[in-house]
Amino acid sequence: MSAFNFTDILTKAVDELADSQSYKGLVHKQADGLPMPSAGALHDVVELVRAIIFPGYYGTPVFNSRTTAYHIGVNVERLHALLTEQIAAGLCFGGGGGADSHVVAAEEIRQTAAMKAAELIARLPGLRQLLATDVEAAYNGDPAATSHAEVICCYPAIRAISNYRLAHALLEIGVPLIPRIITEMAHSETGIDIHPGAQIGSHFTIDHGTGVVIGETCIIGRGVKLYQGVTLGARSFPLDEQGNPVKGIARHPILEDDVIVYSNATILGRITIGRGATVGGNIWVTEDVPAGARIVQRR
Amino acid sequence: MSAFNFTDILTKAVDELADSQSYKGLVHKQADGLPMPSAGALHDVVELVRAIIFPGYYGTPVFNSRTTAYHIGVNVERLHALLTEQIAAGLCFGGGGGADSHVVAAEEIRQTAAMKAAELIARLPGLRQLLATDVEAAYNGDPAATSHAEVICCYPAIRAISNYRLAHALLEIGVPLIPRIITEMAHSETGIDIHPGAQIGSHFTIDHGTGVVIGETCIIGRGVKLYQGVTLGARSFPLDEQGNPVKGIARHPILEDDVIVYSNATILGRITIGRGATVGGNIWVTEDVPAGARIVQRR
Amino acid sequence: MSAFNFTDILTKAVDELADSQSYKGLVHKQADGLPMPSAGALHDVVELVRAIIFPGYYGTPVFNSRTTAYHIGVNVERLHALLTEQIAAGLCFGGGGGADSHVVAAEEIRQTAAMKAAELIARLPGLRQLLATDVEAAYNGDPAATSHAEVICCYPAIRAISNYRLAHALLEIGVPLIPRIITEMAHSETGIDIHPGAQIGSHFTIDHGTGVVIGETCIIGRGVKLYQGVTLGARSFPLDEQGNPVKGIARHPILEDDVIVYSNATILGRITIGRGATVGGNIWVTEDVPAGARIVQRR
Amino acid sequence: MSAFNFTDILTKAVDELADSQSYKGLVHKQADGLPMPSAGALHDVVELVRAIIFPGYYGTPVFNSRTTAYHIGVNVERLHALLTEQIAAGLCFGGGGGADSHVVAAEEIRQTAAMKAAELIARLPGLRQLLATDVEAAYNGDPAATSHAEVICCYPAIRAISNYRLAHALLEIGVPLIPRIITEMAHSETGIDIHPGAQIGSHFTIDHGTGVVIGETCIIGRGVKLYQGVTLGARSFPLDEQGNPVKGIARHPILEDDVIVYSNATILGRITIGRGATVGGNIWVTEDVPAGARIVQRR
Amino acid sequence: MSAFNFTDILTKAVDELADSQSYKGLVHKQADGLPMPSAGALHDVVELVRAIIFPGYYGTPVFNSRTTAYHIGVNVERLHALLTEQIAAGLCFGGGGGADSHVVAAEEIRQTAAMKAAELIARLPGLRQLLATDVEAAYNGDPAATSHAEVICCYPAIRAISNYRLAHALLEIGVPLIPRIITEMAHSETGIDIHPGAQIGSHFTIDHGTGVVIGETCIIGRGVKLYQGVTLGARSFPLDEQGNPVKGIARHPILEDDVIVYSNATILGRITIGRGATVGGNIWVTEDVPAGARIVQRR
Amino acid sequence: MSAFNFTDILTKAVDELADSQSYKGLVHKQADGLPMPSAGALHDVVELVRAIIFPGYYGTPVFNSRTTAYHIGVNVERLHALLTEQIAAGLCFGGGGGADSHVVAAEEIRQTAAMKAAELIARLPGLRQLLATDVEAAYNGDPAATSHAEVICCYPAIRAISNYRLAHALLEIGVPLIPRIITEMAHSETGIDIHPGAQIGSHFTIDHGTGVVIGETCIIGRGVKLYQGVTLGARSFPLDEQGNPVKGIARHPILEDDVIVYSNATILGRITIGRGATVGGNIWVTEDVPAGARIVQRR
Repeated sequence: MSAFNFTDILTKAVDELADSQSYKGLVHKQADGLPMPSAGALHDVVELVRAIIFPGYYGTPVFNSRTTAYHIGVNVERLHALLTEQIAAGLCFGGGGGADSHVVAAEEIRQTAAMKAAELIARLPGLRQLLATDVEAAYNGDPAATSHAEVICCYPAIRAISNYRLAHALLEIGVPLIPRIITEMAHSETGIDIHPGAQIGSHFTIDHGTGVVIGETCIIGRGVKLYQGVTLGARSFPLDEQGNPVKGIARHPILEDDVIVYSNATILGRITIGRGATVGGNIWVTEDVPAGARIVQRR
Repeated sequence: MSAFNFTDILTKAVDELADSQSYKGLVHKQADGLPMPSAGALHDVVELVRAIIFPGYYGTPVFNSRTTAYHIGVNVERLHALLTEQIAAGLCFGGGGGADSHVVAAEEIRQTAAMKAAELIARLPGLRQLLATDVEAAYNGDPAATSHAEVICCYPAIRAISNYRLAHALLEIGVPLIPRIITEMAHSETGIDIHPGAQIGSHFTIDHGTGVVIGETCIIGRGVKLYQGVTLGARSFPLDEQGNPVKGIARHPILEDDVIVYSNATILGRITIGRGATVGGNIWVTEDVPAGARIVQRR
Repeated sequence: MSAFNFTDILTKAVDELADSQSYKGLVHKQADGLPMPSAGALHDVVELVRAIIFPGYYGTPVFNSRTTAYHIGVNVERLHALLTEQIAAGLCFGGGGGADSHVVAAEEIRQTAAMKAAELIARLPGLRQLLATDVEAAYNGDPAATSHAEVICCYPAIRAISNYRLAHALLEIGVPLIPRIITEMAHSETGIDIHPGAQIGSHFTIDHGTGVVIGETCIIGRGVKLYQGVTLGARSFPLDEQGNPVKGIARHPILEDDVIVYSNATILGRITIGRGATVGGNIWVTEDVPAGARIVQRR
Repeated sequence: MSAFNFTDILTKAVDELADSQSYKGLVHKQADGLPMPSAGALHDVVELVRAIIFPGYYGTPVFNSRTTAYHIGVNVERLHALLTEQIAAGLCFGGGGGADSHVVAAEEIRQTAAMKAAELIARLPGLRQLLATDVEAAYNGDPAATSHAEVICCYPAIRAISNYRLAHALLEIGVPLIPRIITEMAHSETGIDIHPGAQIGSHFTIDHGTGVVIGETCIIGRGVKLYQGVTLGARSFPLDEQGNPVKGIARHPILEDDVIVYSNATILGRITIGRGATVGGNIWVTEDVPAGARIVQRR
Repeated sequence: MSAFNFTDILTKAVDELADSQSYKGLVHKQADGLPMPSAGALHDVVELVRAIIFPGYYGTPVFNSRTTAYHIGVNVERLHALLTEQIAAGLCFGGGGGADSHVVAAEEIRQTAAMKAAELIARLPGLRQLLATDVEAAYNGDPAATSHAEVICCYPAIRAISNYRLAHALLEIGVPLIPRIITEMAHSETGIDIHPGAQIGSHFTIDHGTGVVIGETCIIGRGVKLYQGVTLGARSFPLDEQGNPVKGIARHPILEDDVIVYSNATILGRITIGRGATVGGNIWVTEDVPAGARIVQRR
Repeated sequence: MSAFNFTDILTKAVDELADSQSYKGLVHKQADGLPMPSAGALHDVVELVRAIIFPGYYGTPVFNSRTTAYHIGVNVERLHALLTEQIAAGLCFGGGGGADSHVVAAEEIRQTAAMKAAELIARLPGLRQLLATDVEAAYNGDPAATSHAEVICCYPAIRAISNYRLAHALLEIGVPLIPRIITEMAHSETGIDIHPGAQIGSHFTIDHGTGVVIGETCIIGRGVKLYQGVTLGARSFPLDEQGNPVKGIARHPILEDDVIVYSNATILGRITIGRGATVGGNIWVTEDVPAGARIVQRR
């Protein structure tokens, strides 16, 4: 008898939930045959990029140089296939432009995606060079680091920065949505939230990292070091006539070369922290800091 | 020879570890035939709820309205089965009451659980309406957001808030333990820690979010926005005669409608932040803030 | 035709990426037949340790004492096999010593690893006793905790502290790299970053926990409680003649028994927080705090 | 030292195996972006067809008619997607025609495949009717059968015949390669080898079945029953001028309605076994058998 | 435009397939909360039984006697849980009796199933003794067998006979459907089809085995050996007034002790092959064979 | 109360089953640290060999020659690792020699295994040449074959023969146990049972194949074709003084070049079927057949 009641309740709920009015604005309809963004596939993309950049640390072990070439060849090929599919998904799904992406033929989208995937792969050698400087910075900046191996295998900063550098490259190539998913994956894994739009120089490092936020329009120089809990955020933002925030305005800080920011400092607005300045922990900074200065919390 | 030594060491360790005195208070004994709380099953529960509420964003792609109805039907049915099992697990496992839940017949527990699972499903249409306001608030509150798709797919706040709203509903229905596991899953994924007991109004959003803590007895109005690292905590709590904390006392803040709290602010105790007030970052607030006020860190 | 272009781009990228000059310093070469550190295997190690220490909460359900003995026997055996392999991986991979670990015969490494794995298992009964005090501290310290079951199943502090205590024991036994991977797994899961080198007494608890950082040379007494966002860090560190940080210097705080530190406080340098002192939230502490003192943020 | 030797041997073997002369005629090159036949995907196709045709026996359990409609809707949608991909794979891969299928645009192949997949689905109601007669025949023909449930769940004949009927329909729709893979999957599972080209009437059953072979040009009437080990094969076949077998000639037996063939009988060539005839076990038949006759092995 | 057509075709097919008239007699409706027979779970049951009976050959490796006891304890516990669920599934699903099993309370079915599962486990020591004689017979009977290890690991006869002996025991305990599924699993794996109802003595062996069929009412003595392709079948069977076969009549052969039957022989009907008789290959036997006789095919 | 009884029954069963007397002769004890034969790993071995020999048909798709080289390199490396482990398992487990393999150091076994694995890989180019002739024979011998692709993808004979040729090579290299497991895997998959010890020439094919048995000491020439159900077996075998079969005596048939054997024929003993002879179906042959002869069943 009670089973009857369940069925009634469930049937009523399905009817309400399947009423298209009720999910208006919360549904995504997909043209048949087009791929969906997939967290699993993007996880594999990130793992492949790490395996290509740091051979023998991620992916299969490496025994000699010939073997390494084989593995890089296979990994690049697999990366191209996976990325093509996910870039195509981003182009269909997140396309912010005015055009309705669904009317574009699926095949054309796939070809565009394949070309963008190849562009990304062409940038991997440069990405590897950049990440090598980040590894060096992390190792030099932490007395607790016992080896490069420990830094590459264990340090959350390396994970977050490599996801960011990959996402930033994809954004420059013109891929929507996917870059943000990739940085959010690192955010979830490490607590470090770097917007793919930020511009970050070489030899960048973040110690511990949980709670770090780096906003969309930040510009960060060479050799900068952040500690956990640092926010590089926006102070406020202008609204348009409808009361919506105006998109795309430069509203986050600029950190020049060799700046250090200690834990839980909050730096807000389009201000400049000058070359070599040090920002102490737990403070709230909304004005420019001159080069070489050292500011700390008042007690 | 050395293999001999290993065996001796391991045998001795097993003997000590299997001595029931040694795990007293750290063991959970289960009546035969009753289900256990399962992180895997609860992960599926959360994914199903997301797939039902945001069709086409989570779960399988959606092509037209008829298809959507099929998928919602199947997902609701599967959700009911999984939830029934997990609610039953919560009833047996976490039952904090004086009664020994193990003497209750397994079948009776399963029937109670099935009814509570149906009650939760009956609340899903309401939950969807509430979450629609949260998506809108997140989109409107972030100049970096390029589309609703990006908000629903990528924003950790949406994940944390949807887990919280699901857990809060389960708590209201009288399900022990499971709600807390569900909010801790979001805590681990996003760094946002919302106790299922908190009461939170519509149009709620959290930017970035890592490090946010919202305590058990918080009351949060409509249109509130928090930034990363904000704590809404207890200041201190009375102990009973045995020196144990007294459970269930209102000890967390009340935030009225349209309050904004910036990053790393700590608001403690049963105080009230008045309607439309703004709390600046990195400050420590233990007293009421009047409506419309704006308080910031002293420099 | 365009397929041609892709192939050219990819071929060129593979050539550059497979050039051993390009991955110099970023590659790990493994002697044939030696195991690699594996996140999956270490995840299983941690789950097995939890299942052995908290029978019936993690792993398979427990029905009676005889069953418990069977499961502990099987789990200990499996733990020994997995740990041996991972310790061997740590010895080959992360060996910081001057000797080239690759010239040591694989079999010798495996035997050393098997002995170290047995040593770890011999410490499990002690570890269980210590963790029992941590569970008690978490339950007593949180009015929202409804049962020991809730604490053991849900509290991130228990996960982070049990990983730390396991990693610390492995470090004492002389295992490189693996301890750090284990604490980073907890860091990713909970946002709590405890270096395996820290020394932490019994009855230790962390509330909420996201953003907590505990440095390598910290010494923490009995009954200490930390809130989310607390940093126990280094203030600065001497560089050697080459400008590299000098490793292994005591540079993190000492917290004596019964200290409480509230959310987002930052305590830096080799200072001492005296017995029973309370450090308020969101402050920056770089000098000794006397026993019993209470310091808070200036407003 | 010995590791060196291994590397030399392996390197030499790779060079020889990667020499394109050495795999000439044994390689399949795939145009980029086209799907491959996948045993896993085809296994899912077969499971979905069984779940649609026999609701509640295969796939998820069925509770009431409304639920059944949901599940059939979702299963049909998933079947269409999987079949489209596999039919496309068959069109590219196995296309025996004179045209080079690789020059056809990928998108065109996908659209043809999607239409053929829809055609197959349109035939499923008919297939279900036919299989219902086969289930009835198996139940009526075996005194050991205790229920229709046992027949549908356990009898290898039902598995082999449902794969054959699916494959035969695909062949009629003009799908290359895939039908043969589907019947070979049943062959491997049941030991019953039915060529997808054979024509088989309703109420068909095979008892036990291991070793049964039914050739490409067989024609089998209504109500036929075969036992294990029966071969319906070709006697010999003409060669063309190059000494290759001429393809497509009718060369297998015709069994009229209500024929029974006992175990291990071998019936070869384009002969006719007349209506209602019985062929005894372990015999070798190469000539017509009149209607109603009964032939047995000589002793 | 063509996508439209697909949708129409699929929609029409779903309507027809979801019409409950169309699947009448082909649907299984399940009372809510009752388990389904599961091929995966039964596969695990068989693997556990093999691991318990042949410790160290199947399942985890065995190092010493203490370890063996742990593993057998855990395996027996897991076997009891899995078997209880599957026996309950068999009781609900395949119950051929007059009573409607769905009206019996789910809990009562589960308790009956748990008791039957325990009965089966109580028979395992006897089953092990019996299977030990089968292993010995296979080793002694095959000059190609190099060790007992090879027989236990590789010989399909051991797989088929152990499934049969397990299924036969379940049938004696009164479990419907499940025994037949278990023997069909061996049939699919080995091509050996033994009905669970057959009665087979100790020291039984089958060489190669593909195509062997042993019918429901066979009685086989001690020390019998069969070769591949042997059928022990029914000759014909009486029909009842409705023309359906009468169930349960003794209709298969009796093979006395020490009989040998060579490959592809077909023995039909309730006849007796006397002690020590030898039946040559490829012959058709429908009459008694005296003890000690040797019959072969006429040339 | 009944739960009590279960526990008693299960406890008693565990005691009996864990009594080492009861599993005497049925247990395999493994020295710590040595690998076990693994069906899963051997399945991967077979798939890798197929992927190396038939690039693009098995394993990942192949786009151009450069890609093919990458994949073959990676597959050969992975094959070497997997095979080394499994050969080591075979050496420990199935070692038929007089020496007690367990006293040999694990490392020495691993090195021997690695060398044997390299020897096998060095034979792969020759194996590919041989299998190319088998594919050609299957295609030419079957009018139903529409393409080489169909033969390589679908024909069970190709699966069975490639497993046999791999197993035969391993046997020649001196690997125990593993070859037999590999041919039994094909036996289970195809119903074709070829002993790894048999010697089989080029251009070999088997049509349909279910029930084929080829014994240990068979010698088969070039261009031989068998149909389903053919047995090439032993007639009888001498016993030694203890009544055990004498191992290793030549006791199976010799088939000279170009012999054809039709379905279900049984050929027994060390007889010779002369060059170009044809053996009809369903017959029992125990004497030499002259070259060019054609023998059939008497009617």
